[in-house]
Amino acid sequence: MKVVFTFKLKDAQCDELRTQFPDVSFSMYPSIGEAELEDANVIVTYGEDIDRSILDKASSLEWIMVASAGVEKMPLDDIAKRNIVVSNVRGIHKTPMAESVLAHMLALCRSLPAIYENQKQKEWNKKVQSVELCDSTALIIGPGAIGAEIGRLLKAFGVKTIGCNRTGKPVDSMDDIVDFSKLEEALPKADFVISVLPSTSETKGLLTERHFDAMKSTAVFMNFGRGDLVKEKDIVEALKSEKIGHAVLDVFEREPLPSDSELWGLSNITISPHISSHSKHYVPRALEIFEENLSKWQSGDRKLTNLLDPERGY
Amino acid sequence: MKVVFTFKLKDAQCDELRTQFPDVSFSMYPSIGEAELEDANVIVTYGEDIDRSILDKASSLEWIMVASAGVEKMPLDDIAKRNIVVSNVRGIHKTPMAESVLAHMLALCRSLPAIYENQKQKEWNKKVQSVELCDSTALIIGPGAIGAEIGRLLKAFGVKTIGCNRTGKPVDSMDDIVDFSKLEEALPKADFVISVLPSTSETKGLLTERHFDAMKSTAVFMNFGRGDLVKEKDIVEALKSEKIGHAVLDVFEREPLPSDSELWGLSNITISPHISSHSKHYVPRALEIFEENLSKWQSGDRKLTNLLDPERGY
Repeated sequence: MKVVFTFKLKDAQCDELRTQFPDVSFSMYPSIGEAELEDANVIVTYGEDIDRSILDKASSLEWIMVASAGVEKMPLDDIAKRNIVVSNVRGIHKTPMAESVLAHMLALCRSLPAIYENQKQKEWNKKVQSVELCDSTALIIGPGAIGAEIGRLLKAFGVKTIGCNRTGKPVDSMDDIVDFSKLEEALPKADFVISVLPSTSETKGLLTERHFDAMKSTAVFMNFGRGDLVKEKDIVEALKSEKIGHAVLDVFEREPLPSDSELWGLSNITISPHISSHSKHYVPRALEIFEENLSKWQSGDRKLTNLLDPERGY
Repeated sequence: MKVVFTFKLKDAQCDELRTQFPDVSFSMYPSIGEAELEDANVIVTYGEDIDRSILDKASSLEWIMVASAGVEKMPLDDIAKRNIVVSNVRGIHKTPMAESVLAHMLALCRSLPAIYENQKQKEWNKKVQSVELCDSTALIIGPGAIGAEIGRLLKAFGVKTIGCNRTGKPVDSMDDIVDFSKLEEALPKADFVISVLPSTSETKGLLTERHFDAMKSTAVFMNFGRGDLVKEKDIVEALKSEKIGHAVLDVFEREPLPSDSELWGLSNITISPHISSHSKHYVPRALEIFEENLSKWQSGDRKLTNLLDPERGY
């Protein structure tokens, strides 16, 4: 059995894998272009490097282990046709991402950007307008593992949480839940509108101009899901015309965000370069899930942790 | 009965007091210098304007209501001798202060200062070194209402909390508790060392060079209590020589922090101009406590909420 990694691990991590799975042949490559795929049974990847030509080459491929959460760049139809199993590492993002979301919310409430700026000017300026996160309302669009973790932390701060998902099915740590059709009715209640939606055919372009019209003029819009949820021009317009108070974006329609994007020039925006899930624990946690799944796979058990449904895309 | 405020309230707040207490005469002044104190039975103050000459003038004074937490600038001995009751608004700081402390901790963990800087340069830079707050250890020196609230929030983030107080008596939301004599033994365990101590004869100068020596080289020292806990020169030395990783200071030996302070020039510090408790809810909450106490006072009940022991100073 041959496992191909299309990104580099630390030597100690490779050694651990080889010790734990002596019957498996592991090949590590810095990129998929350099990888020998012909006899690979398993590919471990960040998910952005798989296309149809790769599938053609990797004719023995049975399982793609994606060490990230988003699989929207993968040829899911072709993968499904070939009966290739796909699993990801959803769940491991929840701690760092929820911490990032809370960090940005609290920083805005407690005037950290102003504190940092005044410090640079050596200016003792007590006239910053701090507010409290406590007693505010957050609307979390797409609450799965990450959204529920954000909700759990927000509830500790005394924030009212409204979840918005496809089905309206209850989710942990959400005081209320509404389905997508009720999104516009929920928006005017929210001080924070936080999307953690994946990119699927249902979520692409879900938010439009009229959703920003429905938000509070003081609302903070936070996109930590995928950039294709909303057109960049609609965000620019909402911020320029002060339809909303601020945006915190970790994901963008175009990544890296091009230097000519109007977003860079706005004052009421925080631009985070798609790093909200970063953490030194990321790869170790991904490997933990992989090792658990590889043990199952070796024993013939195909009920892997974090199996994906290629038709739904998540 | 005459109540003198030495700071200005909004008109609506004055009206509410007068409606609620028709038998009480309220006089509002922008400062104590302008106040007529001769027949004042109660003074409501932020606490920094009371000295012995004020006590001499206010010969009918029975109760000082301090609309802040720190009373270290008041002549407590003289106040005690004259049997003047002192109460404060401790408790109302806990929400905004705990939010500020968490904001700073999360901002440092999740690289917000770097994100803000890179954004200004229109630079898409994913190479920031984010870590997680989860699984870190926080040592909270002086956990009362504010420290317990910080601890409660930290525990939601999966942080181990160690409290350090005078007696070693257990405190809510602290996994462990040590008394002041064990402080140095506890310091090496902490990723965050957070003081919320008031200024008393026991806490002045409590932290010295050797305490910074005992901290982790990556530790973040946060002073949100009072500036006289530690000499400014010892903080400068600890930061310059990188004995510790970072400091977040909301209080200082000298306030406002003079423009010639070496602290302004350091890169591994966050200088917050004593605003961590600021909130638009501050005065309304202080008045709530005052109104409750004034009702008690009128009915002859002297067991006020938040009574201070002038001898202990808190």
